[in-house]
Amino acid sequence: MNEFELIDRFFRHCGARRTDVALGVGDDAALLACPPDEELVAAIDTLVEGRHFPKGSPPNSIGYRALAVNLSDLAAMGAKPAWALLALTLTQADEPWLTAFAAGFGRLARIHGVALVGGDTTAGPLSTTVQMLGHVPKGKALRRRGGRPGDILFVSGTPGDAAAGLAIEQGRLQAHDADRDHYLRERFLFPTPRVELGQRLRDYASACIDISDGLLGDAGKLAVASGCGVEIAFLKLPLSAPLTAAVGDERARELALTGGDDYELCFTVPPDALAALQRDLPQEKWGYRAIGALSAAPGCVVVRDGTVMEFSHRGFDHFSP
Amino acid sequence: MNEFELIDRFFRHCGARRTDVALGVGDDAALLACPPDEELVAAIDTLVEGRHFPKGSPPNSIGYRALAVNLSDLAAMGAKPAWALLALTLTQADEPWLTAFAAGFGRLARIHGVALVGGDTTAGPLSTTVQMLGHVPKGKALRRRGGRPGDILFVSGTPGDAAAGLAIEQGRLQAHDADRDHYLRERFLFPTPRVELGQRLRDYASACIDISDGLLGDAGKLAVASGCGVEIAFLKLPLSAPLTAAVGDERARELALTGGDDYELCFTVPPDALAALQRDLPQEKWGYRAIGALSAAPGCVVVRDGTVMEFSHRGFDHFSP
Repeated sequence: MNEFELIDRFFRHCGARRTDVALGVGDDAALLACPPDEELVAAIDTLVEGRHFPKGSPPNSIGYRALAVNLSDLAAMGAKPAWALLALTLTQADEPWLTAFAAGFGRLARIHGVALVGGDTTAGPLSTTVQMLGHVPKGKALRRRGGRPGDILFVSGTPGDAAAGLAIEQGRLQAHDADRDHYLRERFLFPTPRVELGQRLRDYASACIDISDGLLGDAGKLAVASGCGVEIAFLKLPLSAPLTAAVGDERARELALTGGDDYELCFTVPPDALAALQRDLPQEKWGYRAIGALSAAPGCVVVRDGTVMEFSHRGFDHFSP
Repeated sequence: MNEFELIDRFFRHCGARRTDVALGVGDDAALLACPPDEELVAAIDTLVEGRHFPKGSPPNSIGYRALAVNLSDLAAMGAKPAWALLALTLTQADEPWLTAFAAGFGRLARIHGVALVGGDTTAGPLSTTVQMLGHVPKGKALRRRGGRPGDILFVSGTPGDAAAGLAIEQGRLQAHDADRDHYLRERFLFPTPRVELGQRLRDYASACIDISDGLLGDAGKLAVASGCGVEIAFLKLPLSAPLTAAVGDERARELALTGGDDYELCFTVPPDALAALQRDLPQEKWGYRAIGALSAAPGCVVVRDGTVMEFSHRGFDHFSP
């Protein structure tokens, strides 16, 4: 099987069909029709074996996550995803592996109506880079900047689950229960990018970021971009029952703050927009929770019973020790 | 230096400034304004150390080539480049290396008015993936398909130079002359994507492809996509004087057919458009040459003095032995 057969067999029909794709996989580049009055939104994210997923990870998870991390970037902008390009580097063309990889990628792509319109396949150490393209009405994108002191800080989902799931995958943690184990591993292997929530938040949020590197670090980036500080209430962090059962309440809160790979949204809402948010996007349905607020004083602090806590690990950084 | 400082320092201001970039490097995604009545053109290409460039290659060449191979894809579509996203995986954040890499990337980006609007930096085995975005008037893009039997086949530049340059870089070839050596190595290290030629060809060419994997293989792909065969005249291949001096005329022609990394354009022109092509894009100025024609019979043949030649290596394939 050569490179061209490989692309033809596994990737030509992977993902959704879209009428705005004038030319997809198979030429030197793709030709795409941008909707008028919308801005193009573009993100790129790489996953490297041994760094973003353990060696020997299930290939359908690798394919799924390659797309999920990029969908999450678009969600954080409030954008609607449309097209993806996939650069896949692999040590060899293994057919069962590729079948499973394409199935994982394709499943998530179809859920979000994303067409795979191009790519590149090369031999080398296993890694994936996805380029994600989407749209947002002109001037309506969410950004990291835009928050103001007093804006309420929210997070979607139950952060920390993915970090525990990864630890189980790597044998560093025992969940001591099959259902719990399964739930946490799935949160790492198949995270849910909050694509619909991101788009809905455009009318309410003042700033937004996706938490890929840990809530504490990413909330801090949002605050810096907004020229603010941020205060997070330790006891308000939303935790899943399997996580607290697996690691205990205290450690669960630490993981919720500093664990990576959650791909949830962290966003701020001005006080005068809170009523509309809660009316139009009920918390019970959309699964987000208030965890703190932006402050005028710079810095990112975690508060418990009125006391500021110390945290050494402020999120994942690829080039720090 | 952490990942965020690294991006800020080396990549925030790398490349051209463009007024159609509403939001560039530094958020979860970039926001871009697409021109009306144009199609978006998107390509992605990965370069892996030890596969697409030798270990220890000059970092300014790696940065330059990371962009050049993608500009070449857009050139093959007749597109005008606009925006790039860079996913860079490197083993460590080495400052002199990054300075030189960004200089090589930025130099070529500025030549073609390309803004670097986003990216991702991760730790791992050295590789680059660039996502290139550009525009083409609606319905006017060049494609691989579109050629018809009887259309004349052209190639730009002097293919084979880059393959010889790579061989010199790797110590597999001696050029026995400093100027010759320098010329050939530069053709590998800093190839010239034919961005302007590609756009000009929109009004004349029936099909186009860039030759990254070898002229013979890539001309064959154009022919297959066009539902034709192709015949190439061995003695009409354009050769550079340094290449023939370094390896002799016979071997030079073989390298012109089967060597990779040239990033020239291979295109077809219908007989009735030849006069206009030669009038509007004089060969002497634009540096292309007729080397054969498309045929009704399928297959890709090289002809010398009326005899069909045999070639075993039809271009570079990442997954064939």
